Amino acid sequence: MTDRDPIAEARQQWVSHGWADAADGMALITSITRAQQLLVERVEDVLRPHGLTFARYEILRLLAFSRRRSMPMSRLGSLLQVHATSVTSAVDRLEKQGLAERLRLERDRRVVLASLTTKGAEVVEAATADLNARVFTSPGLDPDQVAAATELLTSLRATHGDTVAQVTAVHAKGDAARLRE
Amino acid sequence: MTDRDPIAEARQQWVSHGWADAADGMALITSITRAQQLLVERVEDVLRPHGLTFARYEILRLLAFSRRRSMPMSRLGSLLQVHATSVTSAVDRLEKQGLAERLRLERDRRVVLASLTTKGAEVVEAATADLNARVFTSPGLDPDQVAAATELLTSLRATHGDTVAQVTAVHAKGDAARLRE
Repeated sequence: MTDRDPIAEARQQWVSHGWADAADGMALITSITRAQQLLVERVEDVLRPHGLTFARYEILRLLAFSRRRSMPMSRLGSLLQVHATSVTSAVDRLEKQGLAERLRLERDRRVVLASLTTKGAEVVEAATADLNARVFTSPGLDPDQVAAATELLTSLRATHGDTVAQVTAVHAKGDAARLRE
Repeated sequence: MTDRDPIAEARQQWVSHGWADAADGMALITSITRAQQLLVERVEDVLRPHGLTFARYEILRLLAFSRRRSMPMSRLGSLLQVHATSVTSAVDRLEKQGLAERLRLERDRRVVLASLTTKGAEVVEAATADLNARVFTSPGLDPDQVAAATELLTSLRATHGDTVAQVTAVHAKGDAARLRE
């Protein structure tokens, strides 16, 4: 930690080097990177006692949401927007932990499914309760700000090619709605 | 990629499982993680032809901003808000590339400085020009939205313990100023 804001200082350097038109974009991208780092640290602190990382938690959560508690590995990759190799290594680890297992579809043996075990189902519900209580209900901004920030990030994701839904959060009114226009 | 928004779908699942009070926080944190991933991919695409990652670029940029083009390794870690081991491995690689070198302070031989080489200075200016032109001047939101998003992320960083400066971006007026209140 420092006694000054490194991102604000970098922004000032950008302006004084004659790159004012790029200064705000640099500050935004650096701020997103730093916020992500702080939040993932908090999430991982909560998940560690459950034996999980954020990546492995997300896989268990998706499996628990699915009706059959299993899903093709390729589908996990596309929902989590990560590479197949990341899904493979996370499921390897979950399998060793006894939280998930691999199944092969009989009618098309090319399809490998990841499937939640009973123990996996217990662990993911306990981890979710903990994350909700300790991080997600108080992410560090007021509800209106949470909605406004999510809307802005959703626009940003759309610009970069993500399919996004119209944001209809309970709090997404007022400022957020005006910002969208 | 999918034809639906995985984050909006997860938010909906949260609500229908009775976790409505945690749904917006979950969506915010997941959105920040996804936005960071998209933006860092774009930054790294631009930096790759320069032989740099974002982490190594940030070190070269800080060294180039410093008056003596060198800085204690520990200072780099605190400005970049990363662990000492990350700085060590990045500087190792920069040294192998001939872009930085380690110096030891004569009057206090415990202090190791990272120092920019002439080649490092050339590379970082070329990389900055490219990043400014191809990413930072068009980060994917309108200028007002960039300012508003940065302010919200700055508040978020402050809540999580970062020292932050009052945001005084050129565009940080209107919506952004009101959101801060």
